[in-house]
Amino acid sequence: MSITERMLETYPGSITGTDQARLRACVDACAACAEACDACADACLSERSVADLTVCVRTTLDCAEVCGATRRVLTRQTGSEERVLRALLNACATVCAVCRAECEQHAAEHAHCRICARECQICEQACRDMLSTL
Amino acid sequence: MSITERMLETYPGSITGTDQARLRACVDACAACAEACDACADACLSERSVADLTVCVRTTLDCAEVCGATRRVLTRQTGSEERVLRALLNACATVCAVCRAECEQHAAEHAHCRICARECQICEQACRDMLSTL
Amino acid sequence: MSITERMLETYPGSITGTDQARLRACVDACAACAEACDACADACLSERSVADLTVCVRTTLDCAEVCGATRRVLTRQTGSEERVLRALLNACATVCAVCRAECEQHAAEHAHCRICARECQICEQACRDMLSTL
Amino acid sequence: MSITERMLETYPGSITGTDQARLRACVDACAACAEACDACADACLSERSVADLTVCVRTTLDCAEVCGATRRVLTRQTGSEERVLRALLNACATVCAVCRAECEQHAAEHAHCRICARECQICEQACRDMLSTL
Repeated sequence: MSITERMLETYPGSITGTDQARLRACVDACAACAEACDACADACLSERSVADLTVCVRTTLDCAEVCGATRRVLTRQTGSEERVLRALLNACATVCAVCRAECEQHAAEHAHCRICARECQICEQACRDMLSTL
Repeated sequence: MSITERMLETYPGSITGTDQARLRACVDACAACAEACDACADACLSERSVADLTVCVRTTLDCAEVCGATRRVLTRQTGSEERVLRALLNACATVCAVCRAECEQHAAEHAHCRICARECQICEQACRDMLSTL
Repeated sequence: MSITERMLETYPGSITGTDQARLRACVDACAACAEACDACADACLSERSVADLTVCVRTTLDCAEVCGATRRVLTRQTGSEERVLRALLNACATVCAVCRAECEQHAAEHAHCRICARECQICEQACRDMLSTL
Repeated sequence: MSITERMLETYPGSITGTDQARLRACVDACAACAEACDACADACLSERSVADLTVCVRTTLDCAEVCGATRRVLTRQTGSEERVLRALLNACATVCAVCRAECEQHAAEHAHCRICARECQICEQACRDMLSTL
């Protein structure tokens, strides 16, 4: 059982308006995607072909940032506001889609881009799954 | 001249697709709003009536987080992607609008909420101004 | 295999000066602790006794912030600087120790504080284990 | 009057154990340094000589991250804990010193590194000034 799941189980208030399994999956996907993106940005910086990977560095940094912010907002349940969740999940899904497309261009050459693209795909789907329940 | 302005002036690439004055205004508004929201969340925690301000604490923390992420993404110009900027600016404007409405409910009693509501208003407008130029 | 482990395996540069197993454990402990702390802060806000938990809210937010920053810095390997790692790991261990002590005071009453205290303990140890290898 | 100053003035609790002018100066220096570092990282990515600047990208990203975390922790006054502030200010001063030294190596060629080095110097000093009052 992940830490997200255990913490959700002990939440003293009611968690309304969201499917708990999808919420948990989305929090964990955001955390994993943020880690993959931060690592991919740094791996790109270490490639000899870094000059061809600058857009990838930037995109993975942006994706890590938005996934991190989304994780924190989703984790908070007190006074959750549907409009905010909706706009932020949409932004997160968008940056994941863009980052996945960017990383896929380098996936044949760089394993870190291949793994990162896959995490972006999972996270985009988790955001869309959660959006569909709001 | 703000640090944002000085750094933009030294940017070696071209800054395309955005009005520089609006970009700078938006970065600075996000930074100011993040600081106001973090401070307001903490001030609410120090109020004797904290039990009535928990939604305000949560909303200001969310707003600080999204403004912070938006500031960082906007600051990066290498390979800026319009779809990402659009979705993130929309999310930031949304959370600023929600946070402003929440803080305005407490503005008569708490000066920190009054100042914070005003920063949220400025930041929402700066995001919308920048969205209109994309 | 965690995403941290898979990304480290694909890192194109050399990972010097650190024990990889401890690095990975520390990155994952920081991520788990950040999530537990963000969730605990929000759970405290939802308790009827929130007025008695404001120091806990603040401390868990600080711990989440420092763990999050430490995770990102540890994830980057390009040009890793021992002095920075040492100072940051020390700060992270310190805030985890303080947060654990705070949460333990509420552990009998609140399961979220009990779980959070345990994650802080694990993360403090992971930081100290990594410090011992630098 | 900066937003930091205005928010501190409306703080409902007592701000103990710190010199308010130095606290405010340190919060503002962390915010400015975070912005300069994020912008410098991105400017380095846009330089033709990016392959020679990868350590600079990494160091400025780390510095931005730690300055951002320090800003948020300093902004919170509820239950401020001296041990945490001390360790974090020390980490922030350290990363600023390292980042300044890195950027100074490129200051002759790149104006963004020159400005960034100066912000790192100011922020390091502000952290040390605040440390001296704890």
